[in-house]
Amino acid sequence: MPIYLDNAATTKISQVALDEYNRISLEEYANPSSIHTIGLDAKALLEECRTDIASILGVRATNIYFTPGGTYSDNIAIFTACNKVKDPHSARIITTTVEHHACLYCFKELEKRGFEVVYLPVTVDGIDLAKLEELLTPNTILVNMMHVNNETGHVFPIFEAADLVHDKCPDALFHVDGVQGFCKEDFTLIGSHIDSYAASSHKFHGPKGCGFLYMSNRYKITPFTFGGGQERNLLSGTEDLAGIGAMTAAAKDAKESLQANREYVAKLRDMLWEGLSTIEGVHRISSVDGSPYILSVAFKTIPAEIMLNALNARGICVSAGAACAGNSKGSHVIAAMGLPREVAAGTIRFSFSTTNTEDDIMCTLKAVNDIISTVFTRFNFKRR
Amino acid sequence: MPIYLDNAATTKISQVALDEYNRISLEEYANPSSIHTIGLDAKALLEECRTDIASILGVRATNIYFTPGGTYSDNIAIFTACNKVKDPHSARIITTTVEHHACLYCFKELEKRGFEVVYLPVTVDGIDLAKLEELLTPNTILVNMMHVNNETGHVFPIFEAADLVHDKCPDALFHVDGVQGFCKEDFTLIGSHIDSYAASSHKFHGPKGCGFLYMSNRYKITPFTFGGGQERNLLSGTEDLAGIGAMTAAAKDAKESLQANREYVAKLRDMLWEGLSTIEGVHRISSVDGSPYILSVAFKTIPAEIMLNALNARGICVSAGAACAGNSKGSHVIAAMGLPREVAAGTIRFSFSTTNTEDDIMCTLKAVNDIISTVFTRFNFKRR
Repeated sequence: MPIYLDNAATTKISQVALDEYNRISLEEYANPSSIHTIGLDAKALLEECRTDIASILGVRATNIYFTPGGTYSDNIAIFTACNKVKDPHSARIITTTVEHHACLYCFKELEKRGFEVVYLPVTVDGIDLAKLEELLTPNTILVNMMHVNNETGHVFPIFEAADLVHDKCPDALFHVDGVQGFCKEDFTLIGSHIDSYAASSHKFHGPKGCGFLYMSNRYKITPFTFGGGQERNLLSGTEDLAGIGAMTAAAKDAKESLQANREYVAKLRDMLWEGLSTIEGVHRISSVDGSPYILSVAFKTIPAEIMLNALNARGICVSAGAACAGNSKGSHVIAAMGLPREVAAGTIRFSFSTTNTEDDIMCTLKAVNDIISTVFTRFNFKRR
Repeated sequence: MPIYLDNAATTKISQVALDEYNRISLEEYANPSSIHTIGLDAKALLEECRTDIASILGVRATNIYFTPGGTYSDNIAIFTACNKVKDPHSARIITTTVEHHACLYCFKELEKRGFEVVYLPVTVDGIDLAKLEELLTPNTILVNMMHVNNETGHVFPIFEAADLVHDKCPDALFHVDGVQGFCKEDFTLIGSHIDSYAASSHKFHGPKGCGFLYMSNRYKITPFTFGGGQERNLLSGTEDLAGIGAMTAAAKDAKESLQANREYVAKLRDMLWEGLSTIEGVHRISSVDGSPYILSVAFKTIPAEIMLNALNARGICVSAGAACAGNSKGSHVIAAMGLPREVAAGTIRFSFSTTNTEDDIMCTLKAVNDIISTVFTRFNFKRR
């Protein structure tokens, strides 16, 4: 059994979620669009899930749309916001430099279509709201900001930023990529000026292939897929009720023990950092007030892929940057933060979940020390 | 336990598929984009599934794209074919009048964008290839035809039509909505001129939320969603490996016993029709050489919803037209076929799977007779 410290890439489905997947698959298998009793039952369960997700966020159920995952949720929010624009050349979009590619590559596409996209810089200290204010022009139609950065765990001031956008550009929409935040940060959207919030089931021990998007009534819904008219005609296609039900079970479970889970993983993170910090040349990238689920550290002058592979050879799964980015290019997040090259190139992300144990951390620390003292003696590393 | 004769709307997941879903969820939970061992293992399994699906169709694995379902597959094929067109007003699309809304509503959208969409008429005898030939103009860019109609079970001459299109309009693409055909009709794409073929997992006892699209190299891939670059940059988003693996297991299972399954459901269909045909005013809409999985019949002057509800009250699940179409409008398929109003309004679809038994059919016949002799005496129905 490997030691899995790559929970920001994906988590293992929880037993409660898998049980619900099995139950629905066997007992509630009808198509929610069918009008016989078991179809209507399936539809009722679907709406119950929607209400459950909505209540976690503190929003109306009619504003929750089930999607095939976080990337879809982000894409849908961003393109829906832009679809209504008649002349792209007169429209500004603001995003940060460290968004996930599920947002960033939408903006690259929108740039090709003529939209002006401006990038709010991010430092190790995060973003500067005064700088955001400067960028807010009357023609700004959309501002995008992630809740928690997937590589560093940095928590962004989404509520303050949304208030600012609402004050300065009341017509602009504010989209949050919440893939690493939902069920991990303690928040609701009650009273906020956030117009949309995207989440992905498999980041909180739900099944893969499932996610949701909160969209306020300020969005004008246009079909993202065309067909049977499911999801209020936003996203046609037979609903994956087993997946949605399993995601909802995982979300309720995670919400219920949110604080306990945070404390649990924070303890693991602190334990790992305590051990790593005694090693010379190890630099902490994640800030101390970031998400407790992610610890990003740089092993100076040790290329991340070498460390990743050496850990992997010892049965420990970590990541160099985001999983989705593959390994062909360096991390755009670390690069955007302006860290020195030797720090950026040696960045490893440890990411936690409640499936991890203190033993996992002990083994990982032992492995790192082992790697440094044997494999990398040529780099002349020393203990502090 | 209801008697479920609505298998064209969705099927119950098979145990072999559900077992594989569970196995992958627990054992192969890593993100296929992760580069540690369990991520690479997940990626290898993903590609194994792709090869398995490809070999059923007789195509290359690199031309198979996993999607969140049949609607996505159809939408992606259709919009990808049209994306490359610089001037929509100079481009013709040909489809039939009886396609699923997953195709038809794409064309309604494309009409809005300026494309000329022409509709090949369909009668109870199917389509006329000579009529298709007439419609093929040099500016035709896409021809769309479903494999098996979801409401009537009619099997369309997709191979002959594709050959014709290839001969007359070599630059046009030929897309097949195979949602009701894959793993039910006995065919491969070897040597065919079909450029794309869409399928949906939950129609052949796989999980919902999963499907695939075959697209030949004649398609120019452009991203449908933007992000991590999964599925050769067509469809970003973490792959639902458990769903894909379960779908593949279901497909292999269905392919292996394809002929036996067809014979099994044909026997049920014939048994049902034999019983129904003794009732006065019952009209068979499905042709005798149609898919054995679907029997569409009209109870003349009995509105379909009344029959559907009366059957439902007796624990029998059927459909009036497609599930996805909801119940607000009559079936566009039955309307397009030009059937008399009293036939069209009374059309009920019985659709079968290997989970059905002869007992199901006996009970259904008993229920229909019961309904007709008691509930509908006012309609003055008689036995023949």
